[in-house]
Amino acid sequence: MSGSGFGNIFRITTWGESHGRALGVVIDGCPSGLIMNEEIIQKDLDRRKPGASKFGTKRQEGDKVEILSGVFEGKTTGTPISLAVFNQDQRSRDYSNIMNVYRPGHADFCFDSKYGFRDYRGGGRSSGRETLSRVAAGAVARAALKELGVEIFAFTKSVGSIQGKTVDKDEIFNNPLCMADKEAAVKASELMEEAMSDLDSVGGVVECRISGMPVGIGEPVFDKLDAALSKAVMSIGAVKGVEFGEGFGASLKKGSENNDPFIIKDGKPAKAKNSSGGVLGGMSDGDEIILRAAFKPTPSISQPQMTVNREGKEEEIVIKGRHDPIIVPRAVVVVEAMAAVTVLDLMLVNMASKMENVKKFYTE
Amino acid sequence: MSGSGFGNIFRITTWGESHGRALGVVIDGCPSGLIMNEEIIQKDLDRRKPGASKFGTKRQEGDKVEILSGVFEGKTTGTPISLAVFNQDQRSRDYSNIMNVYRPGHADFCFDSKYGFRDYRGGGRSSGRETLSRVAAGAVARAALKELGVEIFAFTKSVGSIQGKTVDKDEIFNNPLCMADKEAAVKASELMEEAMSDLDSVGGVVECRISGMPVGIGEPVFDKLDAALSKAVMSIGAVKGVEFGEGFGASLKKGSENNDPFIIKDGKPAKAKNSSGGVLGGMSDGDEIILRAAFKPTPSISQPQMTVNREGKEEEIVIKGRHDPIIVPRAVVVVEAMAAVTVLDLMLVNMASKMENVKKFYTE
Amino acid sequence: MSGSGFGNIFRITTWGESHGRALGVVIDGCPSGLIMNEEIIQKDLDRRKPGASKFGTKRQEGDKVEILSGVFEGKTTGTPISLAVFNQDQRSRDYSNIMNVYRPGHADFCFDSKYGFRDYRGGGRSSGRETLSRVAAGAVARAALKELGVEIFAFTKSVGSIQGKTVDKDEIFNNPLCMADKEAAVKASELMEEAMSDLDSVGGVVECRISGMPVGIGEPVFDKLDAALSKAVMSIGAVKGVEFGEGFGASLKKGSENNDPFIIKDGKPAKAKNSSGGVLGGMSDGDEIILRAAFKPTPSISQPQMTVNREGKEEEIVIKGRHDPIIVPRAVVVVEAMAAVTVLDLMLVNMASKMENVKKFYTE
Amino acid sequence: MSGSGFGNIFRITTWGESHGRALGVVIDGCPSGLIMNEEIIQKDLDRRKPGASKFGTKRQEGDKVEILSGVFEGKTTGTPISLAVFNQDQRSRDYSNIMNVYRPGHADFCFDSKYGFRDYRGGGRSSGRETLSRVAAGAVARAALKELGVEIFAFTKSVGSIQGKTVDKDEIFNNPLCMADKEAAVKASELMEEAMSDLDSVGGVVECRISGMPVGIGEPVFDKLDAALSKAVMSIGAVKGVEFGEGFGASLKKGSENNDPFIIKDGKPAKAKNSSGGVLGGMSDGDEIILRAAFKPTPSISQPQMTVNREGKEEEIVIKGRHDPIIVPRAVVVVEAMAAVTVLDLMLVNMASKMENVKKFYTE
Repeated sequence: MSGSGFGNIFRITTWGESHGRALGVVIDGCPSGLIMNEEIIQKDLDRRKPGASKFGTKRQEGDKVEILSGVFEGKTTGTPISLAVFNQDQRSRDYSNIMNVYRPGHADFCFDSKYGFRDYRGGGRSSGRETLSRVAAGAVARAALKELGVEIFAFTKSVGSIQGKTVDKDEIFNNPLCMADKEAAVKASELMEEAMSDLDSVGGVVECRISGMPVGIGEPVFDKLDAALSKAVMSIGAVKGVEFGEGFGASLKKGSENNDPFIIKDGKPAKAKNSSGGVLGGMSDGDEIILRAAFKPTPSISQPQMTVNREGKEEEIVIKGRHDPIIVPRAVVVVEAMAAVTVLDLMLVNMASKMENVKKFYTE
Repeated sequence: MSGSGFGNIFRITTWGESHGRALGVVIDGCPSGLIMNEEIIQKDLDRRKPGASKFGTKRQEGDKVEILSGVFEGKTTGTPISLAVFNQDQRSRDYSNIMNVYRPGHADFCFDSKYGFRDYRGGGRSSGRETLSRVAAGAVARAALKELGVEIFAFTKSVGSIQGKTVDKDEIFNNPLCMADKEAAVKASELMEEAMSDLDSVGGVVECRISGMPVGIGEPVFDKLDAALSKAVMSIGAVKGVEFGEGFGASLKKGSENNDPFIIKDGKPAKAKNSSGGVLGGMSDGDEIILRAAFKPTPSISQPQMTVNREGKEEEIVIKGRHDPIIVPRAVVVVEAMAAVTVLDLMLVNMASKMENVKKFYTE
Repeated sequence: MSGSGFGNIFRITTWGESHGRALGVVIDGCPSGLIMNEEIIQKDLDRRKPGASKFGTKRQEGDKVEILSGVFEGKTTGTPISLAVFNQDQRSRDYSNIMNVYRPGHADFCFDSKYGFRDYRGGGRSSGRETLSRVAAGAVARAALKELGVEIFAFTKSVGSIQGKTVDKDEIFNNPLCMADKEAAVKASELMEEAMSDLDSVGGVVECRISGMPVGIGEPVFDKLDAALSKAVMSIGAVKGVEFGEGFGASLKKGSENNDPFIIKDGKPAKAKNSSGGVLGGMSDGDEIILRAAFKPTPSISQPQMTVNREGKEEEIVIKGRHDPIIVPRAVVVVEAMAAVTVLDLMLVNMASKMENVKKFYTE
Repeated sequence: MSGSGFGNIFRITTWGESHGRALGVVIDGCPSGLIMNEEIIQKDLDRRKPGASKFGTKRQEGDKVEILSGVFEGKTTGTPISLAVFNQDQRSRDYSNIMNVYRPGHADFCFDSKYGFRDYRGGGRSSGRETLSRVAAGAVARAALKELGVEIFAFTKSVGSIQGKTVDKDEIFNNPLCMADKEAAVKASELMEEAMSDLDSVGGVVECRISGMPVGIGEPVFDKLDAALSKAVMSIGAVKGVEFGEGFGASLKKGSENNDPFIIKDGKPAKAKNSSGGVLGGMSDGDEIILRAAFKPTPSISQPQMTVNREGKEEEIVIKGRHDPIIVPRAVVVVEAMAAVTVLDLMLVNMASKMENVKKFYTE
């Protein structure tokens, strides 16, 4: 099925395996006339690149995006935009001892059952490298959203038990863990050092904020904004939970606490506070959307683990090679990308919600 | 857009407002030859019915489902199944004072912005009553899944801060809060009584378990099983968070703790424990799927609240009428229904994953 | 699969069998604020009704449409519109002798193979009665298109070998064959009388014209306007061919004849003639869209026919009951309906084609 | 919108402009385990190549396909297959005088209106070169269909008024016009020579036959097999009509002539003749599917033509460069490709039609 397709009007189809020839994405339905070039996309891809961070892997990836179609004279044409990154650093030899085993916490076992075999070269389609395609698509969506006054930023909210409290946007790029709270970033670094020396890994939470949203984006009842964002973000590898506003915390509240009263602000109705996280009744309510995604710790750790091989025998494995001890910092831009793609798509769909607007479009 | 459509092969389209003539759903793509009748569906609808529970509203709904097409001589025909429930208890007068205001925590404001007006009769499409269509569709999906060895059950995991610890399936229907832990149910009742006397409401969490899953269900990378379930469940009104397995708890773990080693069980590979909650790499891994949905407290409370009316003036409102002080017990069967619809759809899609199976289907 | 769903933004899902309880359609994504009521829809349904025409069957159908949701205070709400017609004249007894045979020219055999049985009650889902759902949906689409300046009309272009030459819109409703050419209608009547006395049936062609189209509607390369219309119209039972403009006739022309030169008309570019039939490069070119659908003769004839029964034995059957000796006059409104649904959907999608328009929508 | 996407389970997304960097397609949902390599695909691409035919253009295209993902160790993996052809012969200079005009019979005008500008480099996305992506996808689909016993072949049925009468499969590749009738091919050549010396072009019809179809493929009512094939084929540039079996000819027949009686053949029900063209009630009936597509004459002719430029002034143009005087021979493999993609997709969907098969799949 088109399991690799996402979206209704602005629809992306990703492809590529970590150790195949290339990875990429085709974007269909991007409106024409949007300024677009490789630099715009490369900027977001570089935020994903390992080696930049002290806690990232030292695999040199050198991912350079190429625009193969859909852009002409510096602007999108309205025809499909094909983006590709050709794999440079594909040395398989790091992975040879895991060729025939099912790595714990990885998709190997499921892929083998579903498809009859698996691409043992570093995780194939289930590798974190697949997120490159998402980020490339997200860069295009983000550029369009910027034109519409919508901005997205995300950051690492927590690393293991270390929670960020404050949100300083400038801090996010100052520390290798992409936290928005300077103090917490220091503590988190220490936690990371510990884990690394234990040959272990750590989980965390990414928080993403979307501002400038018009009211009413989302298509009840199944393509509600939070439902669509949920699918988009949960589809990122290693995500185990998604929440909005107070999220699971809302289940602990009383209605009198959790409801956001309406007031008049700048002459228009607005909520007095934002427990809802910017989504009400499944549609944007005008306030900043606040969502969080919980990431499990990186499954590839160098500690010995018990597993089973393809012949059905139990064996102990030690995963060699270079792996991030935490996924979250690299995932920050991926969460932004998926949010961008989802929001832009629903904003395009929303243009057709009122007969009055359709009529205005076609008769004025 | 087809915001009211969900699914690929087994696709449901719901319709209806709480105070319109009827509500219903059209199910397209249900395989033929499944035993089906109104009783099977009514059984699940009745689990949703208020008045049964001490903490449910006393609105008499008497929802009786009718099969209008797609079933012949007691079996599904393969053609679209149209189910409808004609509204009985539609008295609008309870809602008259809220006609022109935006109720806090409700979708009124967003609907008005998106569509240019709103159906003030009790919430219209955003009313909890819309879940009736989901439950009807879920009953059909559940019946098909039963034939395939897949069973689904859900229960109230927590009410406010009261957490259930044990899971006793028989207890679920013994207490009006649908908890699976008898002791917790008692404490939760007390919490509810307090809230009700305060004219307030309470949130909670529903946990849903799916057993008998084959391995490999889910379509990477966007229609992964957890991504699809996430969308399905988040689309239920009042849901603010969805998680799988250890969920947000996984973000606090180390890789060595969170990974589930593989062992041989009954001659086949299986996980030694189930931190993943039955989903690995976005596909079912053979273990019980465990998901949780966090529900915010019911927005409609009888305490006075500040809000804004359609003319742009702030005013205080008191919502009259009969409202549940907690959504969760009624939502238990809704979560099951959405899980059923999602899982069945992806199991049908999965039949085409291997050339070997397609070939077997067509040439043997 | 959602074989009974059609459309992207304005999406219809039809349901119902000829002899089931009811037939209907759910329309998702209809913009809000469109004036709508049962009379508007009934008007088109009545054009489909047999008994009105001398050559139509005398089955009294009395199809009365009911709006079950999606309309409030006389206007569409933006939520799904559910329309239903409850079957009145369901007497099965006319069909008893064909219960176990595969009627030549009918879908019985294919349905049985695909689904494992068939609904012998008058053709079930493959019956012409299924078109009632399409016409109901088409009436809503037509009403929206009218607001946008787009008008659709169709007529019987030919009956057997009798071709209409002129197009007089007022004549269409003056003759029972719905031809737009008075003289041809007379000759065609005679042809029909002959066929009826032979217990035989006749085929024909419907021509449909869509005026007021803006330029550029259609989504290359697969959802081109003609491709989408093609699917929509070919899906009507008994259609064996669809063509645009000169259609199959264009294959006989030279490029110098078939090309439509551009000129300036009313200060804007326009084509000097319309061999393209209003579609160029798969998009509307501003001129009247002209499409034709070829209908095979009604399969149900009273002449004895050789066929096979479900037990695998050859037998001769005589189809009793009341059947139209020609499908075409009843299909005229069905072709209009499918055209309306297709065109409206693509016009809604087209609103998002240029960044400039998206920006104007969201920032002005 | 995803106007460049086609299919449900086996879904293709094409991209690329004639003079952009590359063209390609992403195939999502191809079952795993199918033997696949560049040679298999190249074989079909080469049938499309101009220069091979006396009547084809002498543009050297040298299109070489590359598999960028989705194939491992010689077989499809089940993950998206990305195919690309990098443009070699992109010299723009041939097209400079048409940069600012709307070429008659071309999509320039529509693209400009829809997207706000157009890619003047040789037609961009509306160029015939876009079919390269379709053929590449079709080659993969065809390989899968072969495993299932389904074979597809097409040929030029007519060139202008010259009709082929006999069908000799071996003759198709013997003559540059790809006709299946040797005598007709000779007459057609003469017609072509005439047209070429007149600086004109000629239209024609492609006939496509699909054998080995199981019964019941197609999803009523909108994704009927003929409806889906119709959309697929009509979406090919220059197609103005599509018909099945007797097609428009069926409209001239009587029911007693057009109906195909059922008989027992090889112990199973089968039709005695094939007027239906292999599709009955919108589903395959077991017989060879016969469809025809009418192609208009190539719009790019070297005769002077009147047109309008982007500034709104009428002017005469002479299209220079190398253009095929007939599209049909190159389109033969394109029609096969679209048929393959459509049929395979619907065969995959059909696997889920009966509960009995779903149950067998999951419980045996």
